[in-house]
Parts: sequence; structure tokens; C-alpha cells
Amino acid sequence: MQGWGDAGLTALAAAASLGAMWDSLWINARLATMTAGTPFGLIDRGAVGLSAGRIVWLGDMVALPAAPVALARVVHDAHSKVMTPGLVDCHTHIVYVGDGLSDFEILTRGGTRADMLAAGGGILGLAMRTRRAEPERIAAESRKRVARLVAAGVTTMESKSGAGLDLETELTTMRISRQLGRELPLTVVSTYLGAHAIAPEYRDRLDDYVEFMARTVLPAAMREGLVDAVDGFCDAWGYSPQQMTRLFEAATAHGLPVKLHAEQYRDFGAAEVVARFRGLSADHLEYIGEPAIRAMAEAGTVATLLPGANWTLGETKRPPVALLRRHGVPIALATNCNPVSSPTTSPTMMMNMGCRMFGLTTEEALAAFTRVGAQALGLQASRGTIEIGKVADLALWDVEKPGELAASIADNPCLAVIKGGTVIYRASEPSFEAATHGQA
Amino acid sequence: MQGWGDAGLTALAAAASLGAMWDSLWINARLATMTAGTPFGLIDRGAVGLSAGRIVWLGDMVALPAAPVALARVVHDAHSKVMTPGLVDCHTHIVYVGDGLSDFEILTRGGTRADMLAAGGGILGLAMRTRRAEPERIAAESRKRVARLVAAGVTTMESKSGAGLDLETELTTMRISRQLGRELPLTVVSTYLGAHAIAPEYRDRLDDYVEFMARTVLPAAMREGLVDAVDGFCDAWGYSPQQMTRLFEAATAHGLPVKLHAEQYRDFGAAEVVARFRGLSADHLEYIGEPAIRAMAEAGTVATLLPGANWTLGETKRPPVALLRRHGVPIALATNCNPVSSPTTSPTMMMNMGCRMFGLTTEEALAAFTRVGAQALGLQASRGTIEIGKVADLALWDVEKPGELAASIADNPCLAVIKGGTVIYRASEPSFEAATHGQA
Repeated sequence: MQGWGDAGLTALAAAASLGAMWDSLWINARLATMTAGTPFGLIDRGAVGLSAGRIVWLGDMVALPAAPVALARVVHDAHSKVMTPGLVDCHTHIVYVGDGLSDFEILTRGGTRADMLAAGGGILGLAMRTRRAEPERIAAESRKRVARLVAAGVTTMESKSGAGLDLETELTTMRISRQLGRELPLTVVSTYLGAHAIAPEYRDRLDDYVEFMARTVLPAAMREGLVDAVDGFCDAWGYSPQQMTRLFEAATAHGLPVKLHAEQYRDFGAAEVVARFRGLSADHLEYIGEPAIRAMAEAGTVATLLPGANWTLGETKRPPVALLRRHGVPIALATNCNPVSSPTTSPTMMMNMGCRMFGLTTEEALAAFTRVGAQALGLQASRGTIEIGKVADLALWDVEKPGELAASIADNPCLAVIKGGTVIYRASEPSFEAATHGQA
Repeated sequence: MQGWGDAGLTALAAAASLGAMWDSLWINARLATMTAGTPFGLIDRGAVGLSAGRIVWLGDMVALPAAPVALARVVHDAHSKVMTPGLVDCHTHIVYVGDGLSDFEILTRGGTRADMLAAGGGILGLAMRTRRAEPERIAAESRKRVARLVAAGVTTMESKSGAGLDLETELTTMRISRQLGRELPLTVVSTYLGAHAIAPEYRDRLDDYVEFMARTVLPAAMREGLVDAVDGFCDAWGYSPQQMTRLFEAATAHGLPVKLHAEQYRDFGAAEVVARFRGLSADHLEYIGEPAIRAMAEAGTVATLLPGANWTLGETKRPPVALLRRHGVPIALATNCNPVSSPTTSPTMMMNMGCRMFGLTTEEALAAFTRVGAQALGLQASRGTIEIGKVADLALWDVEKPGELAASIADNPCLAVIKGGTVIYRASEPSFEAATHGQA
């Protein structure tokens, strides 16, 4: 439990020879590789060699083929701290403007999602705000949130549209997702979520809006290279299974994978739709039943659980974790960062909530933000575990056991983030100036 | 919602004349004074003048008696951000070593407090660890946590002993509490909590241990000037009302105020004991009944609610907030920072939990960490509100409405902390280095 200042990331040596095998080498790391076999895939006195942005060696330090300084141009000592795969936040609505305070205060007074909508809040309030906002302002506010995610260990993030619903705002927010991936050192997966809510222009013409998404917005986003996946809200308050099927057919025709907000408020058959398309994930799932879970298991669809929304909306029904486990459906967690139901940029708090609210183990909670999170984005071949050949996206933490990441409440113990082999972030302890009247 | 980098704390000017009235002046602040009358005591375009560590002027900017640069040696522009009183964290066990991971994992598997104790964890496990630890290590680990509290807006913190139970460790931890108050820019109130748990040496001789506390430890702590208040755990698993009465009589004889962990697991008559001594606060209170609430109201005893422990222990019973309100008992919140049941240094997350779990309003949640928190430490004359004559302990936040502090999950929007008139902390946005293989 020593601080970064005295036990952190120190480049021990630059190898004299330019012929060193690896770009960098981390030693004395408690590696939570998150591969199968042992709890957390732990290598207690581990080392990782990185070259050309990839993991090229890992194992126990005693198995290193030569002295560290002979192996790499830079050697970093992790001082027995825990190193994990860079976190993967597989469900966010992080591109938005403004705050959800009025919604929160309605919920705090015992109101519901319907009360929020009646007061002009919720997703529609957000959409009206986002349509009016300057793109530069949307980007600036969003960039701050994404920066906090990176400083919390996230190296890959999904970012959904759906805060505008109309053509221009949807394209604008997807452009901002791409822009954030260029400007900040993380990988951004952009998801088109025009079917997030019912656009006011199409209130009584949902089928027309589905056609508008399928024939106008999605092709325009494809032409600009703005979209990696398609998502929707399939519920009595949103789109029917038939409407989602139509949109997913359009997505599939473009070669895009699909995912779905499913069974958050009732068992509506949404998870079956996404499973039928062999979708990446079905998300929320408080009300999912066993047949849909079986369909997900067969389709290889991940269950992405979102404790932040369960918490903020005051939902008392929890997703059926025991059933998901029994059928072998992998469980991801995500921040679901959005102003209305999950105003957070804290993966570790979501892990804590996953344990306390949903009954996950600390190991499941960390897997949910690494290995399974990557699978929920279709990136399991390159990310989500510490394995040879994978992208060198890593996070170093001020803890000595990986389970501690989920055990504390609202702390951020991230010490450093490595993206594609490069240390792109180092935390600093807060420093204080003397208070001349401190004990006044 | 602009960042600190572009909208933060900028010293506008140094007055040419050394005859300026005030040491410093904050302008363009949304002042949440937390005084009565209006919600949050808000002054929307507020200014605060500070001199000799005290607040000497506050009001609407249009009422300033002269141009800002003529009034103070330094003028700070708050750029319409919210400024609150410095937070008061009135219940912490922040001086400890190690972590509570094994306890958390027992709880996560559905275990109880009794299971933790049976496994050698809980408070007794902590006591055994703390007794063996070097004081320097206890201080170093605790200092990191306190630094995080300061960086989260806390200017006054209570720190309890009770992690050692024996004479030497109790004195050591109280010395560390004092030391932290000297080394870090916050006010530390030191509480003797020898009656935290049953010391193993006295397992079958509780009355003897009470005498030991009253006749040996407390006088020794008084001689060294280490103690400001006395606390205990009054429960079937702890000390009886009669035993607490004996200890409180000793405290009162030393002129010390008292407080009590009360009705956390059952209605045990503990709050009545503390009310009889006109104690500062009764803390936890999940199982308190109306007669005890009435006694607290008459005694002026604060109800300190601790959502972190309610959360981590998986307690489903909530404290009776509506009854506390009806009887006019002021409600404080605190982090209860400890490794077992509330491993957190996040006041804003406790505000969020206070709203979502206990039904507090956002205004009650902020009052609970300012005005009422100060009252729970007997410091209401000098702290807890922004008022003329009070100590200039203030916090500046990256929000535009004070309710936002409670609405987000696990974010820390603190921009700056002012202690006794001096800016002792400024947050910085995380900065990143370029990832050469970021999109690999």
C-alpha cells in the first residue's frame, strides 16, 4: 500500500545495446492476466515484455531469458503492485451535454422514469439539449469525461450515439466519438443508437423512423466511416422486436454487429432478437427469463450488466446472475456513462456495485471489465487479457491483490496506464500548499 | 461544466496598495452558504472576502463596496462554479493498516458480520494487525487516505482510535491523528474509541475493560492532549448501556463530549444513553425507535447516518429519515472510512448513497457534510457554513448547481480547497502522453 511517489513507475535502465529484444519490460508486477486456470490468472512475481505495441513475453520473473536490462530498452519496476489488462468499458453514452440533476431530484423524491419524461427530462430532454448545443461544446464536455475514464484505467471504450436521434445530431455525436479516439489515448468503438428513444418527429410513426434509420442515417454514417455496431432500445416504451429486427437486418447488410438494451423494465423478448442475430451483447437484463438466457448462451452473446442504472433508477429487481452463470453466459459490466441514469466515470465503483448489488465475485467483476468487456465489443482476439500477441494495453494499480479493485467504494487506485506499449498516464498523489491559518 | 484548466482559479490582480482591506476575495462564485432561508443558502453571483483566516464579507457581487481589485490583495475568479463550506467528515476510522478484502469477499459470498469475526477478520482482525504494525507504516498508509479526503473537499475530519484497543496502540493511533492534523492542511478532531470492540484480553471481563479505559487509557490520553471526544459501540455484541454510562461519566469528568455507535444492528437503548449525556451524535441508527429519536431531539444530539456501512454489510434496513425529520433531529453523513465496512474516502459518493439509499434530498445530503457535520463535532460556531466570522474553510467544485455534488456516482468534482483563507489544493485535469501504438 505504498504510494506512487515512492514505489511507482521507475525506468530502471536503458540497455546499452540498441540490439535489446524488447521495447520495454515490466518486472515485479502481480500480473492479473485474467486468463483461465487460476484465480485472476495471477502470476505473483510477474514480468511482461512489450514490443511494437504488443505483448511479446510474459511469465514468472525467474523464467526471464536474461537479465532485465539486457532484454529491453526500458525496464519498469512495478514494485509488487497489481497489473491488469487495460479496462474495457463496453457500454457508454458518454457523448452528451449538460447534467441530469433535475432527473436525479425527481428520482430522489420517489419519482419514476415516467415522471422524468413528463417533466421534460430523461432521454428526450437530453436529445433536445444536444440538438441545440454547439458540437465544440459537446466535444469539450465529453472529452473531460473520457479523460477521467482513461485516468481510471480504461484503454478501450464504446461510445453510443442516441443523444440526438435526428440525422445531423446523430452524425455529429458519432464524429465526436471518432474525434475522441484520435485526441485521447484510448480505442473508441462507435455504436449507432438512433433507436435509443422515440424521436418526437416520429412519435406516431415508429415504423417510418425505423426506415429512416435503416435507409438514411445508417448509410450516411457508413459513408463517413463513423459506425462499428448498431444498438437499440427494445421495450414497450421503445421499439418492438419486429422493428429491431428490421434495423438489425440493415446493420447486418452493412456487415455491422448488433447489440441491444434488453429486458430492463420487463421481459419483452429483446434478448431473443439479439441472440437471433448472434449479437455481441444484450444489456441490462433485470427481467430476462431462462429461455432467453439459453438463446444467448447458444449465440455466444454477452450479458452486459449495468449496476449504475439499476442504482440510480431505484430498481429493486436484479439481473439473474446465478442463471447466467449456470448457462455459461459471460457477464460484462460497464459504466453506462450517461447523465440521466448512470452519471459516472468509475469502473471500479461499478465493480463494487456488481459485487454488492448483483452478487458477483471480485474476480467476476474484474473479468467483466477486461476479458468479457472485450468480448462484448468483439475485440477478444486482441484485448481483454494479458497474453502474448495481444495489444499491450495495461493498467497498474495501487493495490496488492486484484480483488481490492472491487472492494473499495468510489476510490480510484489507478497508478498508470499503458496503451499500445506506451505509458500514457501516471497518477500523482495530491499535493498541498501550507495553510497559514490551517488550525485557526 | 468547463474544466479547471480553462476556467479555474486565477488570481486576477494584486492590489497596488498594501492598504487593501482583505487578504483575498473570491468573485463570480455560486455560493452555497448552507445557511437557512433559501435552498442551499444560494447566492448565485456571490463574492466572499477573506482576512486573517476568517470570512469577513459575503454577498451578491453587486453589493461589493468597491471594485474587487481595490478590496483585496488577491482576487480569484470562480467562473460561476459552486463554492461550498469546506466539507466536514464527522465519523472516520481512517487510522489503520492493511485492507479488508477478506471481509469483503466473505460478505460478497453472502456471509455476515459474525462470519467475518469467525474468520479472524472484522474489527478484531484489524486490531491484531494494527498492534503488530510499525507506527510509521500506520501513519504513512493513513496519510494517503487523509490526503484523498482533502482532495475531495474535506477541511475538517474526525479520526477515531479503536484499531488497537490496548493502551499502547490506542495512544499510538491518537498520536497519529494529531500528527496528521499537523502534517496535512485540515483540522483533525481526535476521538477515543477504546470501546470499539471487545479487547481479547478482556473477553469475559468487560466491566474490567471499562474501568481500564476510564482509569488508565483516557487519563493517559488526556495527559498527552490526544483526545477531544469519547465514543463507543453500544450493542449486544459490544458494551451495555450501563457500561457506556460508566465510560461517559469518566469522559464528562474530563470535560469531554461524547458520541456513540448506536442501534446499528438492533434497538438497544444506545441513543438514549448518548442523549442523556447531551452527546454530540448518535451514529448509524438503522434500528432506532421513536422514543429515542425524541430524546435526541430534546438533547440536541445529531443523527449521523453512515450509508457506506449499510451498503457494504448488505443491511436492508434503512435509518428512519422521515421520523428524524419530523422530530427535527439534524442529519449528518460521514465516510466512516474504515477497511471493513466502509473502505472509502469519497464524501460525494456518501451524499449520493444518502439520497439513493436513505431518501435524503440533495440539499440535505450537502448540509449533512457541512453545517450538520460541523454540529456533530461541536464546531458549529466556527465551521460548516459560509458566514461572516466563520473560519475561511471553503471548497470550489466543477459543477454549476450544488445539487450536482450528490447526483453523480463516484466522481470527485473538487477543483480547489481553501483552508483558513489559503488555497491549499488545486485539482488538475489528467494529462496524457501520446500513445505511439494507441490504435494498434
